[in-house]
Amino acid sequence: MLKVSERGTALPMSPYRKLTPFADAAKQRGVGVYHLNIGQPDVETPPAMLAAVQQASIRVLEYSPTAGYPSYRHKLAAYYQRLGIVVAADDILVTTGGSEALLFAFMCCFNPGDEVIVPEPFYGPYLGFALATGVRLVAVTASFKSGYALPPIAEVAARITPRTRAVLICNPNNPTGYVYTRTELAELLDVCRAHDLYLLSDEAYREFCYDAEFVSPLQLPGADEHVVLLDTISKRYSACGARIGAFVTKNRALYQAAFKFAQLRVSPPGLAQVFAEAAADLPSSYFDHTKTEYRARRDLMLRRLRAMPGVQCPTPDGAFYIMARLPVDDAERFAQWLLESFQHHGHTVMISPAAGFYATPGAGRDEVRLAYVINQPAIEAAMDCLAEGLLHYPGRTLAQASASALHTPTLLS
Amino acid sequence: MLKVSERGTALPMSPYRKLTPFADAAKQRGVGVYHLNIGQPDVETPPAMLAAVQQASIRVLEYSPTAGYPSYRHKLAAYYQRLGIVVAADDILVTTGGSEALLFAFMCCFNPGDEVIVPEPFYGPYLGFALATGVRLVAVTASFKSGYALPPIAEVAARITPRTRAVLICNPNNPTGYVYTRTELAELLDVCRAHDLYLLSDEAYREFCYDAEFVSPLQLPGADEHVVLLDTISKRYSACGARIGAFVTKNRALYQAAFKFAQLRVSPPGLAQVFAEAAADLPSSYFDHTKTEYRARRDLMLRRLRAMPGVQCPTPDGAFYIMARLPVDDAERFAQWLLESFQHHGHTVMISPAAGFYATPGAGRDEVRLAYVINQPAIEAAMDCLAEGLLHYPGRTLAQASASALHTPTLLS
Repeated sequence: MLKVSERGTALPMSPYRKLTPFADAAKQRGVGVYHLNIGQPDVETPPAMLAAVQQASIRVLEYSPTAGYPSYRHKLAAYYQRLGIVVAADDILVTTGGSEALLFAFMCCFNPGDEVIVPEPFYGPYLGFALATGVRLVAVTASFKSGYALPPIAEVAARITPRTRAVLICNPNNPTGYVYTRTELAELLDVCRAHDLYLLSDEAYREFCYDAEFVSPLQLPGADEHVVLLDTISKRYSACGARIGAFVTKNRALYQAAFKFAQLRVSPPGLAQVFAEAAADLPSSYFDHTKTEYRARRDLMLRRLRAMPGVQCPTPDGAFYIMARLPVDDAERFAQWLLESFQHHGHTVMISPAAGFYATPGAGRDEVRLAYVINQPAIEAAMDCLAEGLLHYPGRTLAQASASALHTPTLLS
Repeated sequence: MLKVSERGTALPMSPYRKLTPFADAAKQRGVGVYHLNIGQPDVETPPAMLAAVQQASIRVLEYSPTAGYPSYRHKLAAYYQRLGIVVAADDILVTTGGSEALLFAFMCCFNPGDEVIVPEPFYGPYLGFALATGVRLVAVTASFKSGYALPPIAEVAARITPRTRAVLICNPNNPTGYVYTRTELAELLDVCRAHDLYLLSDEAYREFCYDAEFVSPLQLPGADEHVVLLDTISKRYSACGARIGAFVTKNRALYQAAFKFAQLRVSPPGLAQVFAEAAADLPSSYFDHTKTEYRARRDLMLRRLRAMPGVQCPTPDGAFYIMARLPVDDAERFAQWLLESFQHHGHTVMISPAAGFYATPGAGRDEVRLAYVINQPAIEAAMDCLAEGLLHYPGRTLAQASASALHTPTLLS
């Protein structure tokens, strides 16, 4: 009998998309769905970037160089340098989204059977990239109580075995919004140096830090051979559909290996590189506006969440996600119930159950990730739905009485 | 010590690009280089496709659906149906180039250690995809004498072991230009059905058949569960830089597995899908013009090659490549010499040594692949260079006297 491969069978469905059929069914029934489940921002893509493509004169849409157009790589290097990340154009391999940068890192740093240590909760697809490449993902749990800070470095070090090859972090973190401190990063790098490990730093949300300073481990002394910076323009310029990312390292052997994988797909997308290159001409104030907007959304969502009885959430310093503990038996069941059996003034809300962000079985069962990627009135309405949903969900774990006692007036709107 | 992975180390540099530094050096010295080494057509990309992107009104460049925009998938299904390949939009997963379709096929059909049978010479990167995914590529040699037809089916069957999971063909073939006949494909499918094998059909050059009828194995009865069609718009619309391809199968289990890999990278490029979708509006005569031009180029190149003493080449029926046997000790050495030590009226020519298209060590040492992707005057000039180069190359294997005797006047121009 024809069989699907073991990796093809083992690969999980995306935790972001597992609930999609229920959302589709809700929409079919005429129920509006507020999407807090996926990091697809509603922020306008810079018109100047689209204009660059629309004004480009292209006779033949040829393969670009394998590493990306040199002109784009030079501008990207200048962008990093402005942030204090000293890399040259030749340290940059333009990739098809951040996901391809991840794939190259997994392919080049690990043999099948090798291990990578990852603080959990983590970006769900890491598990998929590990399964696809035969790598074992070893989780070290960040605690809700500490706001998902890096676990004590001794706990990270305790996970190292002879098969460990790397530590993988996402900074600012998806899903937690935590921004690693310079001290935490220095400790991590020390461990990586002491044990000959790569330090893979996924910095998709670099530009979204609100109360904390962003530091890349590539800025630290002694980092050059160890650090691989995994990047994407998806969030930075509200350009998820462009599929442009970067694999950045000063480790030449690793770069060369990644380059060979890049040769297999010949080149990254051409039109999207023209688009991405135009980011260099955006005014330096570009991120100010976006950050101000995201910060306001975050503050609004935090305020609303904290007003809901039994809901707890640390303040995330970066990215555009909030992790919240809900008073429910099982966040996945609750999320499905919201889509299947609930509506409030003709609307409901789609949220990401956090279990998909954990490798430890059973972890995160009462946690969800909420993306504040929709505008403030929509966030208000989505929070109304969530609050109301929590009051009526049959699997609620707070006593109904106490819930009613704490019931805030906004929920009745 | 930090180490690059075994797969990252084992992966070969692209056979197409290995000679690039020598070509770059030649250009630095002021020597013009005719590129016959890579399938980058000079044919104009349809302006209507670029116009579709340039006229698109996009506020937020969002992720597209994982499988690609439904509107594009429907138009693509209609395209296949017009060719007699009966597939639905839901059988199509839009990919980032044909290379991603290949990656998904290798990931989903094979476990590490599994084997795939491939007629050689084959598209070089197949070997890379096999190495990347832990798969063993088992070659069955197509003979120069037969014009690189499918080897006798008994020879294919003789390669089957308990680890064999698929046969992989490229039709029309890159690098040979051979177009598989309906009979050959039916025999292959029979073998695949008898032994529970997938039949992976890379059809990047489908639209470029000159004297032969194109048949996809997906058109044959009993093919549905076995065949995966791997596609790309790169050559079809002279749009290599777009990076849009497709993974097409009626095998639902395999489709679902590929879909999960597709979820890891969230979506294929968005701008390029808008571009690709506009192909549906091209006049049905679009390929006529392109094919007429390619046929004229092929005929010109064949005539010139056959006029060179000691050069032999079968007539390729499809794609835009000619495989030629040259009277040289080693085609790779010759190709390098052409770039490093030769010029003719200020120009030289870059060719692809065929060894990179063979898995069998030592095979194809006197063969090269020539891409007729440049215009006819440029082909004339490139052939002048090749003819002259063959006369002066120190590793020439024809006696000099007989070569001079056959020396044609055009070479003196």
